[in-house]
Amino acid sequence: MSDLKFSVMGEAESQTRITVKARQFSFVIDEPPTLGGDDLGANPVEYLLASYAGCVNVMAYLIANEMGIKLEKLTIKVDGNINPNRLFGKSFEDRAGFKLITLNLQPVTNASPELLSKWKSEIKKRCPINDNLLNPTPVDFQLA
Amino acid sequence: MSDLKFSVMGEAESQTRITVKARQFSFVIDEPPTLGGDDLGANPVEYLLASYAGCVNVMAYLIANEMGIKLEKLTIKVDGNINPNRLFGKSFEDRAGFKLITLNLQPVTNASPELLSKWKSEIKKRCPINDNLLNPTPVDFQLA
Repeated sequence: MSDLKFSVMGEAESQTRITVKARQFSFVIDEPPTLGGDDLGANPVEYLLASYAGCVNVMAYLIANEMGIKLEKLTIKVDGNINPNRLFGKSFEDRAGFKLITLNLQPVTNASPELLSKWKSEIKKRCPINDNLLNPTPVDFQLA
Repeated sequence: MSDLKFSVMGEAESQTRITVKARQFSFVIDEPPTLGGDDLGANPVEYLLASYAGCVNVMAYLIANEMGIKLEKLTIKVDGNINPNRLFGKSFEDRAGFKLITLNLQPVTNASPELLSKWKSEIKKRCPINDNLLNPTPVDFQLA
């Protein structure tokens, strides 16, 4: 298959808020008051964690179908921690972004632990967001 | 400052759809019909691009304020391409995720090109999502 192209666009509505459009969808990204915003939407780093949960959800079912695993229910929790010092320009010791992300996949299923272990490995191997987090992604950062 | 912790959680609503909760916010992630979904929300990889736009928005204003740059308007566009072959398990030649992400920052301002060039460099250096994309991020992928 040829590459799929994805695109989003937004215009700043405040110093922390932007409404992003992706095809027919639009959603508000903001910051809580503790990070200088009006708290009118989840913040950028929460959207990153959500993106990861969404991608793992799709891959989990796709691969479960391939392997004959029946999922009665699936819950996904994603956590991460960031040291805000670099963001605020106070210190450059720590990295800017998430230092560690923990994803917890909670399936309700009768599948064996062995099969679920293979299922998990396959999800990690084929999930786009997992790849973009674990491995460096080339970014072309342009100033118009 | 000590680390900030962020957390999201969701339960699968279909084989492609999940409503993710982040604090008091919740939003739907789905896939278009071409990727097997019902198209009730932007898809996971679009949320990743949106997360990047949102983060750059916050950093752009924070650093503009520090540098005395007045932004009359700011538009951010983010694009990326993915080869779906690995996702669908058809071929493992290409990586699973975005092969390249292009971010286009379009400020309306009277600031000089030299100052804007420094502004751009500082955004790249301090933006959390930019860091998590450009550099490997440790992920603890747990199966409950």
